[in-house]
Amino acid sequence: MNLNDAARFLEVHDNYDILTHAYPDGDTLGSGFALSLALSQIGKKSRVITSNIPSKFEYLLKGTEHHEFETQTVVSVDVAADSLLGSNMSQYIGRIDLCIDHHGSNTINAREKFVDPRAAANCEILYKLFDIMNIEITEDIANCLYTGISTDTGCFRYTNTTSETMRVAAELMDSGCSTAYINKVMFETKSRNKILLERAVYETMQYCAKGRCAIIYTTIDMINKLNIGDDEMEGLASIPRQIEGVMMGITMREKEENFFKVSVRTNGDINACDFCSLFGGGGHPAAAGCTVEGDLNTVKEKLIKAAEEFL
Amino acid sequence: MNLNDAARFLEVHDNYDILTHAYPDGDTLGSGFALSLALSQIGKKSRVITSNIPSKFEYLLKGTEHHEFETQTVVSVDVAADSLLGSNMSQYIGRIDLCIDHHGSNTINAREKFVDPRAAANCEILYKLFDIMNIEITEDIANCLYTGISTDTGCFRYTNTTSETMRVAAELMDSGCSTAYINKVMFETKSRNKILLERAVYETMQYCAKGRCAIIYTTIDMINKLNIGDDEMEGLASIPRQIEGVMMGITMREKEENFFKVSVRTNGDINACDFCSLFGGGGHPAAAGCTVEGDLNTVKEKLIKAAEEFL
Repeated sequence: MNLNDAARFLEVHDNYDILTHAYPDGDTLGSGFALSLALSQIGKKSRVITSNIPSKFEYLLKGTEHHEFETQTVVSVDVAADSLLGSNMSQYIGRIDLCIDHHGSNTINAREKFVDPRAAANCEILYKLFDIMNIEITEDIANCLYTGISTDTGCFRYTNTTSETMRVAAELMDSGCSTAYINKVMFETKSRNKILLERAVYETMQYCAKGRCAIIYTTIDMINKLNIGDDEMEGLASIPRQIEGVMMGITMREKEENFFKVSVRTNGDINACDFCSLFGGGGHPAAAGCTVEGDLNTVKEKLIKAAEEFL
Repeated sequence: MNLNDAARFLEVHDNYDILTHAYPDGDTLGSGFALSLALSQIGKKSRVITSNIPSKFEYLLKGTEHHEFETQTVVSVDVAADSLLGSNMSQYIGRIDLCIDHHGSNTINAREKFVDPRAAANCEILYKLFDIMNIEITEDIANCLYTGISTDTGCFRYTNTTSETMRVAAELMDSGCSTAYINKVMFETKSRNKILLERAVYETMQYCAKGRCAIIYTTIDMINKLNIGDDEMEGLASIPRQIEGVMMGITMREKEENFFKVSVRTNGDINACDFCSLFGGGGHPAAAGCTVEGDLNTVKEKLIKAAEEFL
C-alpha cells in the first residue's frame, strides 16, 4: 500500500480500534491519539487501545472523544510485530486491517501495511498522511505528532533525524504545538529516584580494553533499595557509551538472581550485534542485547574478557 | 542596518578581522569560521580572532585559508558587549566596523550593527545573510552554521528554537553537514572527569521548600581532587532544576575560600532574577546569578532560608 491508498482506506472505513505497542512510548501514543483526532475530524469513530500510559504522556489525550461503537476496523500504529502488542490486545492478533509503521523490521500480521523505514518516527508518516487527507493540524494533533517525532529522535539528536523530520517539526511548531512544555517534560525532567539511580550506577562504572569499553550494572538489591520502577531504568544503557574514548558501552541489569540482561551500545565501526551474538544475543549494529547467567562478578568478568578480545 | 545593508557592507569592504567572544562557544566560533569561508568565496581576505579554542571545536577550522594582510575592516560575531571580547582583543575596542549579533541586550561599541534577538543563534542570522549574498552553502560552511545553531538551542530543545530555526537546520542538513558527528561530539560525549564530577555533585544534592527547591554545590577541594577544568563545569547549573517537582534549582560553586558563585535556574513563573537580587545579583527571569560570601554551610543555609521564604 502506498500513502495515498492508506489515506483512502481510512476515509472509507469507520469504527476504528487503534492499537499501540506495549510499554507505550511517545511515538506510539502520539500516533494513536493523533490518528483518533484526525478520524474525528472526518466524522469517524475511534478508540485508542493502550497498555498503561505513563503519567507524563497524559496531555496526549486532550481533545480525544469517547465513542461507543462496535469495532469494524483495526489499525496498528508504530507496532513492529504481533508480539509487541500489549498483553490486553491478544484478541486483535490476526485481526489487524491496516498497519502504519516506520520499523524496517516490521513483521506484524496485517491485511494491509504502510511501512516507511526512512521516517524518523511513525508520527512523521502520519503528518504526511494527514496532509493527503486534508486534515487540519490543530494544536492537539500537533502536540501528539511533535511528541512522537521529538521522543523518537532524542529531540532531533539521533542519526534517524533527516531534513524532512526538521521540516515536519517546523510545520507542527507553526500549528501551535507546545514545544516548551513537551521538551521540558520529555528531555529536561528527571525524578528524584532517577538521580539516585544514576548516582548508584556511576559508582559501578568500570573501564576496560584501555578505556575503549565501559561497563555499568544494576542489581535487584540496588533497585529494591532505591524503589526504582521499570520506566525509570530507561536511558541507562546510553550512559557508558557517551564517555569520551569509549567505543563500546555495556549495561548489565540483574533481572532475576544470577540472571543478567545485557545491553550493548557502540560507536563508530564496532558492531554491537556481533559482540552480543557471542552470548547468543542479537540486535542492531549500534545497539544490541543478550542475557548472561551467573553471579555479578562472574558475568562482569566474562563480558570484560570478551570485550578485550573483541575490541 | 538591515540584513541587506550588512550584505552590501561585506561585499564592498575587504581584509577582515573577525572577532569572537571570550570562552568561545559553538555559535561564536561557527559564526566566525563560516563568515571567513563565505568571504573567501567572494574573493575577500579574512582571519578569525579567537581566544583559546576548545579541541572539540577544531573541525570548524576545516577549509579556512590563512591570508597575510593588513586589517582594514573589523567585524564582531555573537559578541554582546566590549567586555565579552577575549583578553587578546582589547586593541579592537572602539574599532569595530560591523557587529552581527542575536543578543537583545547588545551594547557593543560598533560603527554599524545588525542585531536580531529573534534568531535562536547568530549562525541563524548568517544563514540568511549568506542567502542574500548568494554564498554557496558548502559542507564546511554548513558544519559551522549547524554547530552554532545546535549548540545555542541545546539541539533544538530550548525555548529559543523557532520553526525558522528548524527550517534553516533542514537546509544545512541538505547541504551535507555532518549532524551525526556534531551531535555526538556536542551532546553525547562526556569526559570521565565529568562523570566523576556529576557523581560528586549528586552526593551534595539537598531539597528544601517541600521539594520545590533543590541545591547542589562544588567546593575548591572537590574540584582539585577530581582535577576538573573550568570547561567541564559547564551544564552543572541545569542539574537541580530538571528534577521533578523542582521549581528553583540552585548551584553553589566555591570560587575562592569562603566565596561562592551562585547560579539559579527556575521553571514556570518563578523569577530567578528577583531571587538573585536579594543577594545583589541579577540576570534573566529563568536564569540568574549572584555571589555570596561565607563558609559552605552558612551560605547554603542562607540560600535555603531565602528560597523557603521566596517560593
